[in-house]
Amino acid sequence: MAKKELRIGLVGYGFMGRTHTNGYKRVGDFFGELEYKPVLQAVCGRTEDKAKAFAEQWGYASYETDWKKLIERDDIDAIDICTPNDQHAPVAIAAAEAGKMVLCEKPLARTTEESQPMVDAVEKAGVPNTVWYNYRRVPAVTLAKQIIDSGKLGKIFHYRANFLQDWTINADLPQGGAGLWRLDATAAGSGVTGDLLAHCIDTALWLNGSIKDVSAVTETFIKERMHNLTGKKEKVEIDDACTFHCHFENGSLGLFESTRYARGHKALYTLEINGEHASIRWDLHDLNRLEYFDHSDESQVRGWRTIHITDGDHPYMDHYWVPGLCIGYEHTFINQVADFLRSLQDGTPCPPTFRDALETAKVCDAVLKSARERSWQDV
Amino acid sequence: MAKKELRIGLVGYGFMGRTHTNGYKRVGDFFGELEYKPVLQAVCGRTEDKAKAFAEQWGYASYETDWKKLIERDDIDAIDICTPNDQHAPVAIAAAEAGKMVLCEKPLARTTEESQPMVDAVEKAGVPNTVWYNYRRVPAVTLAKQIIDSGKLGKIFHYRANFLQDWTINADLPQGGAGLWRLDATAAGSGVTGDLLAHCIDTALWLNGSIKDVSAVTETFIKERMHNLTGKKEKVEIDDACTFHCHFENGSLGLFESTRYARGHKALYTLEINGEHASIRWDLHDLNRLEYFDHSDESQVRGWRTIHITDGDHPYMDHYWVPGLCIGYEHTFINQVADFLRSLQDGTPCPPTFRDALETAKVCDAVLKSARERSWQDV
Amino acid sequence: MAKKELRIGLVGYGFMGRTHTNGYKRVGDFFGELEYKPVLQAVCGRTEDKAKAFAEQWGYASYETDWKKLIERDDIDAIDICTPNDQHAPVAIAAAEAGKMVLCEKPLARTTEESQPMVDAVEKAGVPNTVWYNYRRVPAVTLAKQIIDSGKLGKIFHYRANFLQDWTINADLPQGGAGLWRLDATAAGSGVTGDLLAHCIDTALWLNGSIKDVSAVTETFIKERMHNLTGKKEKVEIDDACTFHCHFENGSLGLFESTRYARGHKALYTLEINGEHASIRWDLHDLNRLEYFDHSDESQVRGWRTIHITDGDHPYMDHYWVPGLCIGYEHTFINQVADFLRSLQDGTPCPPTFRDALETAKVCDAVLKSARERSWQDV
Amino acid sequence: MAKKELRIGLVGYGFMGRTHTNGYKRVGDFFGELEYKPVLQAVCGRTEDKAKAFAEQWGYASYETDWKKLIERDDIDAIDICTPNDQHAPVAIAAAEAGKMVLCEKPLARTTEESQPMVDAVEKAGVPNTVWYNYRRVPAVTLAKQIIDSGKLGKIFHYRANFLQDWTINADLPQGGAGLWRLDATAAGSGVTGDLLAHCIDTALWLNGSIKDVSAVTETFIKERMHNLTGKKEKVEIDDACTFHCHFENGSLGLFESTRYARGHKALYTLEINGEHASIRWDLHDLNRLEYFDHSDESQVRGWRTIHITDGDHPYMDHYWVPGLCIGYEHTFINQVADFLRSLQDGTPCPPTFRDALETAKVCDAVLKSARERSWQDV
Repeated sequence: MAKKELRIGLVGYGFMGRTHTNGYKRVGDFFGELEYKPVLQAVCGRTEDKAKAFAEQWGYASYETDWKKLIERDDIDAIDICTPNDQHAPVAIAAAEAGKMVLCEKPLARTTEESQPMVDAVEKAGVPNTVWYNYRRVPAVTLAKQIIDSGKLGKIFHYRANFLQDWTINADLPQGGAGLWRLDATAAGSGVTGDLLAHCIDTALWLNGSIKDVSAVTETFIKERMHNLTGKKEKVEIDDACTFHCHFENGSLGLFESTRYARGHKALYTLEINGEHASIRWDLHDLNRLEYFDHSDESQVRGWRTIHITDGDHPYMDHYWVPGLCIGYEHTFINQVADFLRSLQDGTPCPPTFRDALETAKVCDAVLKSARERSWQDV
Repeated sequence: MAKKELRIGLVGYGFMGRTHTNGYKRVGDFFGELEYKPVLQAVCGRTEDKAKAFAEQWGYASYETDWKKLIERDDIDAIDICTPNDQHAPVAIAAAEAGKMVLCEKPLARTTEESQPMVDAVEKAGVPNTVWYNYRRVPAVTLAKQIIDSGKLGKIFHYRANFLQDWTINADLPQGGAGLWRLDATAAGSGVTGDLLAHCIDTALWLNGSIKDVSAVTETFIKERMHNLTGKKEKVEIDDACTFHCHFENGSLGLFESTRYARGHKALYTLEINGEHASIRWDLHDLNRLEYFDHSDESQVRGWRTIHITDGDHPYMDHYWVPGLCIGYEHTFINQVADFLRSLQDGTPCPPTFRDALETAKVCDAVLKSARERSWQDV
Repeated sequence: MAKKELRIGLVGYGFMGRTHTNGYKRVGDFFGELEYKPVLQAVCGRTEDKAKAFAEQWGYASYETDWKKLIERDDIDAIDICTPNDQHAPVAIAAAEAGKMVLCEKPLARTTEESQPMVDAVEKAGVPNTVWYNYRRVPAVTLAKQIIDSGKLGKIFHYRANFLQDWTINADLPQGGAGLWRLDATAAGSGVTGDLLAHCIDTALWLNGSIKDVSAVTETFIKERMHNLTGKKEKVEIDDACTFHCHFENGSLGLFESTRYARGHKALYTLEINGEHASIRWDLHDLNRLEYFDHSDESQVRGWRTIHITDGDHPYMDHYWVPGLCIGYEHTFINQVADFLRSLQDGTPCPPTFRDALETAKVCDAVLKSARERSWQDV
Repeated sequence: MAKKELRIGLVGYGFMGRTHTNGYKRVGDFFGELEYKPVLQAVCGRTEDKAKAFAEQWGYASYETDWKKLIERDDIDAIDICTPNDQHAPVAIAAAEAGKMVLCEKPLARTTEESQPMVDAVEKAGVPNTVWYNYRRVPAVTLAKQIIDSGKLGKIFHYRANFLQDWTINADLPQGGAGLWRLDATAAGSGVTGDLLAHCIDTALWLNGSIKDVSAVTETFIKERMHNLTGKKEKVEIDDACTFHCHFENGSLGLFESTRYARGHKALYTLEINGEHASIRWDLHDLNRLEYFDHSDESQVRGWRTIHITDGDHPYMDHYWVPGLCIGYEHTFINQVADFLRSLQDGTPCPPTFRDALETAKVCDAVLKSARERSWQDV
């Protein structure tokens, strides 16, 4: 059976450009039953040499150096945005207006204000859209969602999440430019809040529902860094660390923390949910496992279960290997591509949509405002 | 060599009465070199049968039913207070005024206001005093202190601590009376803040210095419980859960959480400190271990070390068994008794003194006030 | 109620002398309901100064320097043997013949040949007897026994146990004399086989039944060591390491390993049992936990449970603290004393008896013979 | 730069057919610097429908149903063998004689006798050859090799490895045919010895050198199973479980165990090496981590390090994502393809070669013979 083509135009060829492309290239091998197949039509980047080299290494049929031209092309069905955050809005809006589907790297944009028109644009155009909050598609996290939806946890009391890194402790690390735009507030919008907590918030909203209000504190430990774009020492405007507590609509308390100054942790995204009857824990450094405690177990042998999420009846895992064999970080993107293709097939949205991601933006904005004003903020 | 006697009068014979008594009885076996030895002179409790039975089982030479009589006795050198929190202040102040040494179970009292006169009393009387924040004397935690003092961590960025339990989730659990006074605000002063976070705060002040300001949220999940003293359903006035973030004087951020609604956790006190050069983690469920990450390790083989704190060169451990053999919770009290006896010998304070514990009370009060007023509070 | 006295005469005041004495001293505090109470009547050791000092520190009413005199004393009910292994047989036999109860440190003796007359002696005399294979009384291990007896595991396929240490890697460590008699074959009988594997075998026989035949290999990595008793370099006659596989009578395969050359392990006794329906794991470095896998759990959330064995419904734990609070190595001895006292009360044996321990001796002998002869040996 | 093509002819389209193909398809994305690129020229399988479907899903340009025809084709450079074990020898020998490079799934063949002519064939033909003992290329295992080669461990005392599974406990599972040929001795040669222990042995020979002699025991727990090829209950001729101990040439002791009856373990390959100065541990269920203990660490903070092998200076990891982000099982095959391509480029062998794998076959044969004859066997 001939598959329908989904011709991809990728904007940006950095770390995320690679993870998305890998998703497109591999989905057919593992999800052979899907009607659609992605086609790597074009990659777009400002530096011609690099765009060309990326196209060659990863197998794009062509390249562009101006994203507006990419969007004008008739042979592109979907625009995938992997640029720094400040380019998300203009590209996404133009793509939607040109009738393209839009897949946007997270966070949706730098602020709610910048995000809202993106939502409006895709909804007005009626184009399929999704945001790459990829951790929803870690099989263990997807299973957590299924367990929660089954009612096994009962009333929720606590939700907590951390995202701990240590890569910016060195004061000699500059800000700005390729690979370091995450330290540059103009490009990134914020620091760990938009980069890391946004992931934690997206998962939390999905697993535990809406957040009502937040109280936050942020810190910038290193106040000035050399700026790669200006060549001068400049004030660091991003948040190096952020913690907040919050109330969820369901009555539970939330506690979130993120930092790039937690020596010893590389990308330690950890979450835990405590319900009346059961609890769940997960961390990204050991992503194939879910920890689960069920109070209904016989009391003498009741304990935290460490479940190796590699069996055929675990989410997504019937598409990979055999029990006990780990998958990795990159499979979250393959899974999201598969779900996106399936959503085209079914005519249903592929969450998180732009509208879903707007909620995360609102929480991030409330967090940053709370930190600035040292007061509770409604979301 | 004949040892000097330290004749103990114990007030209260509950859980803490047992842990302290066990400390007095065993210290001589493990710390044979000390000049002082505790003598179990008298235990005091309101219910004569129980006081007598406790005296017999644990080996007290006598018993009393009125703590004022106990304090009047000439054959008592030190009063050890293991009552519910509301009795700490009157007993401690009377004991100090009678010239007795005072060892007081934590927290010092229900509030700062109630605690201050206790500090004044022991200082005016010039009597040795200490508060049983026993977790300082887990060998792994003591080692953490030594590592920090050595400078191995460098500048501190983050301090986080949790104390998670799940024993009050059942709505049928009553409040008040023996074993359940911790749910009764009159007896306890507060809920998890004074009971559990007070431990976390004491350790934090010791390891990481003073706290400047706090922003907290508390929650009472079950609003009414049967009260054992009134026989009626009464409003629950304590905090079931509390989280707060804070600034330490040294510039680091703190994050604290405690709850009795974290299904699956029995007494999970966890702490982590992230410094510029190294980090430390510990938890009470596996108390013989310390986790330590040192960035100065060669990069390819750099990782979190899990150190089994059972060697002869680890704090206190030369007094116990051989490498690899665990000690337990109760040894923290034996260690504190040993340190108290040594402080008598040396004429030095045995921290945390009443004055040290007053700092913890101030932080607890600021936390509770912050939660009530939904605003940052200076300590 | 006045308790019946069990007047103890302890032979040997080393590491094991301390652990047993601690057991006698603590049992009344934690097991107040027992009819008997141990009385520390006398300790016996060859060196008068040390025997006297031990008596003073630990509270023995008297001391002796000749074990024969100790046995002759009318005011002693039970002889507890904590000497090096070569003294177990003569002391135990003489004690039994004098009508004393006998508690003997493990292994029963250096060989089966030496052990058999000990069994005969206590059985002929009809005196209560027990051997201190203390790991049976780790609450987690006792729970493992209960789980197995309940049938939860079904047919057993595999039993494996390790006891890994690293304290003799240094070639400069001498053999023989106080603290180092375990390296001296004359005093110890064997190396890791009698010292460490004997523990693993005792637990295995208890949990999994009889062993039919064994095939073993031993190694002595450091061939000569200075001997503290002769002052000369002498051949090392003990086994530094030993591994064996075996068939159990129930059809399961066993695999055992012990060494003092496993760098990084202090006293890592680990066991695992795999049954048709469920499996169990435990290790001594984290002795308060049991790991349990139950295949009858719902498949998506099936995993190894890590059970913190500190609840009131766990074996022995109703006598200690509250859920979540660890006990230590020494409590295994307190538990064994409690069980011995209860056996006196009930008129039942206190396993492992001398006869039970003889089975372990037979397995050890078969293991050593198999290693010598490079062939399978029936037990 | 145009890449040189390596045109692959794959024989077999099962589980291993997928892992190898995935390796070929991905290598260019992650190892863009290599001169060679694999081309999926043809897949061969007996069932035309399946061969065709596999070719379509995974992107092979053509398919065959007779491996002899595949070997005859001029447009194939390398034959990759993913059949059941009994077909390895005829295909490999014919391929070598036709001048094709040969990549063979492990084990090399069912026996040493069958393997030797394969080695002779590839060596006589002078064709590049490799065997897919893929676990050498887990980055953590490769790092273990580098650490050992650096001398950090010093003299080795112990090597131990387990490979534990539980998928054949159900007595209703049949033997033979697609997916179950591993239970059929004719197709597989042996049970866990050739399937699982062969992996452990290959790694051991690589990390710790040659094995001198072995003493083994095997067990077949379920004696008869329905046979899918005969439709009748047939005797089970494979080994369900196997344990052996051995001497390595370097003087260390080895201990190996494998089973498919260890309830709770899916594919738990675990290895540990204890050296004079340091030790290493690893397990497949958490394959991104290596545990490392270094005795030269300062004694108070000495412990097992858990190293997350995801940094740019870890083996192979500069080709994947960023620190903290896991890779999976399948990347071991991508890494082996990369090394094979590099070996073509450099004109060097790509270990393990057929000759290397012959050593593993010899150890397996000695193990099985030892188990049959209940005696030690030289390798």
